[in-house]
Amino acid sequence: MDNFTFHNPVKLIFGEGKMDSLTEEMPKYGNKVLLLYGGGSIKQNGIYDRIIEKLNDINSDITEFAGIEANPKLSTVREAIDVCKKEQIDILLAVGGGSVIDAAKAIAVGAKTETDIWDIITQKGKATGSLPIGTIVTIASAGSEMNASSVITNWETKEKKGWATPNAYPTFSILDPALTYSVPNKQTVFGIVDVMAHVLENYFHHTSNTAVQDGLAESILREMLDIGPLLLENPGSYELRESVMLSAVLARNGMVNMGYKGDWATHDIEHAISAIHDIPHAAGIAVLFPNWMKHVLHKDNAGRFMQLAVRVFHVDPEDKSEREAALEGIHKLREFWKTLGAPVSLKEYGISEDELDEIADKTVQVRPEFGNFEKLTRQDSIDIMKASL
Amino acid sequence: MDNFTFHNPVKLIFGEGKMDSLTEEMPKYGNKVLLLYGGGSIKQNGIYDRIIEKLNDINSDITEFAGIEANPKLSTVREAIDVCKKEQIDILLAVGGGSVIDAAKAIAVGAKTETDIWDIITQKGKATGSLPIGTIVTIASAGSEMNASSVITNWETKEKKGWATPNAYPTFSILDPALTYSVPNKQTVFGIVDVMAHVLENYFHHTSNTAVQDGLAESILREMLDIGPLLLENPGSYELRESVMLSAVLARNGMVNMGYKGDWATHDIEHAISAIHDIPHAAGIAVLFPNWMKHVLHKDNAGRFMQLAVRVFHVDPEDKSEREAALEGIHKLREFWKTLGAPVSLKEYGISEDELDEIADKTVQVRPEFGNFEKLTRQDSIDIMKASL
Repeated sequence: MDNFTFHNPVKLIFGEGKMDSLTEEMPKYGNKVLLLYGGGSIKQNGIYDRIIEKLNDINSDITEFAGIEANPKLSTVREAIDVCKKEQIDILLAVGGGSVIDAAKAIAVGAKTETDIWDIITQKGKATGSLPIGTIVTIASAGSEMNASSVITNWETKEKKGWATPNAYPTFSILDPALTYSVPNKQTVFGIVDVMAHVLENYFHHTSNTAVQDGLAESILREMLDIGPLLLENPGSYELRESVMLSAVLARNGMVNMGYKGDWATHDIEHAISAIHDIPHAAGIAVLFPNWMKHVLHKDNAGRFMQLAVRVFHVDPEDKSEREAALEGIHKLREFWKTLGAPVSLKEYGISEDELDEIADKTVQVRPEFGNFEKLTRQDSIDIMKASL
Repeated sequence: MDNFTFHNPVKLIFGEGKMDSLTEEMPKYGNKVLLLYGGGSIKQNGIYDRIIEKLNDINSDITEFAGIEANPKLSTVREAIDVCKKEQIDILLAVGGGSVIDAAKAIAVGAKTETDIWDIITQKGKATGSLPIGTIVTIASAGSEMNASSVITNWETKEKKGWATPNAYPTFSILDPALTYSVPNKQTVFGIVDVMAHVLENYFHHTSNTAVQDGLAESILREMLDIGPLLLENPGSYELRESVMLSAVLARNGMVNMGYKGDWATHDIEHAISAIHDIPHAAGIAVLFPNWMKHVLHKDNAGRFMQLAVRVFHVDPEDKSEREAALEGIHKLREFWKTLGAPVSLKEYGISEDELDEIADKTVQVRPEFGNFEKLTRQDSIDIMKASL
């Protein structure tokens, strides 16, 4: 392993009916609440009303900020920061999935500084604090509820940036699997892809002595394989929703990658794509990841791919070379996602070959080389995207 | 799963040379340090000198409190609390294993209240705060460095009590595997037993839908099986020490048992034994645990034992009943610990049949029924101990 620091102070409040704990948690941080949410599905499924009822029980002074979009925009974040400052907000309550919570992190940090939040996101400025953030998770996917990472898109410059600061950890996160019953199957599939992709991005590394972390990673992946198809047939199953919800957290809260650094090249390419085309993050990942795997697979790293194939995808290694077993595993991963209904081609989102240069430029904008498991260049990103068309 | 809250704010600082981070961490909490340690082995292996040097670098005002014993005593804790109050200590620095860190938790809580610490440990009084605790781990075993639990023995009343409060989480813990090179093999074995026992106590539960947690638990157990014998032959292997050190943390920091409650009956019996006989905790556990397994195994719970046998001890389930596979797994666990050199009989510690009544009384002193996987009574504890003589 590499030396590491693990310090994840998020209070995870998990289980059915746990929204009730709002009345206990919120008053610790003040009365003036900025309620953040997305497109309003929480008004249809009743979650909004339940939250308002709880907040009224403790006489919260509520300001609402709705309309946070998937791939949350810098312009939206800036608007919400202004509201925080003007209304002297004490605490943010972010209700939604990764997008709303990612936005909340930027808003919380931006509200406590005069530095423009984009400067902090792009590491030109430093975070100096943050408002406390409570989250209520309504889709199991990104795991943003238990980490300090966030992705924000600047549509003026067409840049989508991942960033993190210890200031951005939510203070508490409420995860009630029952709140995700009404998530449509398409989003559920993206959630499963996202959870698996986070584990897989971490899984590909060259650091030795990570057997226990590998075991956790493989357990999460196997669980997603086992329950994915069942969940699409039984979207109202508490246990299946529960399982994805916990897996989403464990995939991305820093446990699985204690002591090593994952690859994350596919995320870099996907961020470049969706900075130009506003496609669902997990859709891009589902198309790209198997192609990244095939692209970087070679005889010196095939052992890692084979381990994944054997332990997670139940590939029988007998009479197969490492490469053969590895390719069978990659095929099974792609087939699994395809069977769930995830896209297999970027063309499904109207992305064509003549845009790849622009996307590739964006991928290597910050670093000419990217990825940790295998160092990739601009040309590699083009090759991977071509294979993904 | 059951509903749960996970909130573990410990900053884990892991890796070779990480003692250097003392100079960064300590000044955040004040200048007056109470340095806690045990029998003085840290003076022989040079750890003490390195710590003093670091503390001198930041001009700490150091008070020393040495001699914290294995199975730390209430009388020792009370003494140290008095020192904290008299010297107006700002932060505790606990250097050692589970005993020193467990003691530090009681001292930290006791220093911030006028209530006697035994009343807090026995839940007659409430913790109202605590001094910050830094730890430097010198033996991988208890995992106390990343949880809020502690075990203290009252020799006046011959009671050994486990207790926990959110106030007792260490603020930061420094884990450098290289600091454990000089741990003698006997203690290394106890460490491995302790890590495995913590996982096993958690593993036996009846809660459904814990596949991911099971996977983590089984990974830790398999890793201990793989590396245990190697480590005894290569006590100076960084990677092997590293692996036990991380496993010790993961076995006991609340991750493995997210969403369910483990059994812990064996710990209850062992605590009663070592409240009377000052035997090493892990020695008692090594003898008792396989006998607890055999005692509680029956046809309706054999599936859980078989899962353990197959996934961890590589028992081939073909043509075996659940019970047969389960018994083979139990046998393999006992043999593994025996091969490492752990004791197999309580007689090795001079415990005889005529003491069992007194120990059994102590086991059920608080609760006439104990254990969560299977409810046990006083008679069960006698039967398990008889099988362990």
